[in-house]
Amino acid sequence: MKKSIFAPRENIYQVEEGELLSPKFDQKGLIPCIITDYSSKEVLMHAYMNTESLEKTIKSGQGHYWSRSRKKLWKKGSSSGMIHKVKEILIDDDQDAVWLKVEVQGLGASCHVGYKSCFYRAVSKGNKSSTKLKFLEKEKVFDPKIVYAGETNPTQV
Amino acid sequence: MKKSIFAPRENIYQVEEGELLSPKFDQKGLIPCIITDYSSKEVLMHAYMNTESLEKTIKSGQGHYWSRSRKKLWKKGSSSGMIHKVKEILIDDDQDAVWLKVEVQGLGASCHVGYKSCFYRAVSKGNKSSTKLKFLEKEKVFDPKIVYAGETNPTQV
Repeated sequence: MKKSIFAPRENIYQVEEGELLSPKFDQKGLIPCIITDYSSKEVLMHAYMNTESLEKTIKSGQGHYWSRSRKKLWKKGSSSGMIHKVKEILIDDDQDAVWLKVEVQGLGASCHVGYKSCFYRAVSKGNKSSTKLKFLEKEKVFDPKIVYAGETNPTQV
Repeated sequence: MKKSIFAPRENIYQVEEGELLSPKFDQKGLIPCIITDYSSKEVLMHAYMNTESLEKTIKSGQGHYWSRSRKKLWKKGSSSGMIHKVKEILIDDDQDAVWLKVEVQGLGASCHVGYKSCFYRAVSKGNKSSTKLKFLEKEKVFDPKIVYAGETNPTQV
């Protein structure tokens, strides 16, 4: 059996104050991952990783995630060329969330809908009976019908 | 029955390209939430929300989350005074992740361990047999033993 690069979780002190990486994967074997742009610091994506994708990301320096809709390891950019070149990897206090700071290669967009960031809409605030979304990005960077031709949309209703 | 401020999820086009907020909560009724500092743009926390916490956050402009360890609605700062004043709320393409940009009140820290950000450690990269964590914040902003005196640590091993 291949030795894991992750340390076992022993106690709260070790997890919070220690220098060993002991990530906590949930019941489905996944850990959430925040991806931000290294230069602009904007959040680009929220994704999930399993042990294999986190290990591949650490070893290769390229963002690997777990596609919940396709149920498979997902090297970001393998279809589109928009690879996530990882500049920094951070882990949170209880080690159940990962943060990657990346440079996006190719056309520089990360959202399968065609926008730079997946977070292209803002929610109106206030004590109202309904909420409206406002588009923050005016134009798509690419046309997903061309870049992802023949692939199934990962969004699930 | 109180009317929800969220719209039903009808189809992929409405979810991705529409102007209605139709968040997707998972099987546990939760949606992940990224919290960043409005000024520095650093990621402060990764949390979860249920329908009530998202609705309260939108209506009050203060960050409300769901504490998975305490199994209850959690208004951030109710013990510590370090309220999350929400400047902007964003939703992602398939509406299954929320991003809050906040100003942290009080001592200005968001991590229960005492640091400004929960992401106070970086993971070493490269093809090695083990990984080491490097502390990015040298000093804690507050002493959790004082600020959270008598409360149980939310970290679960």
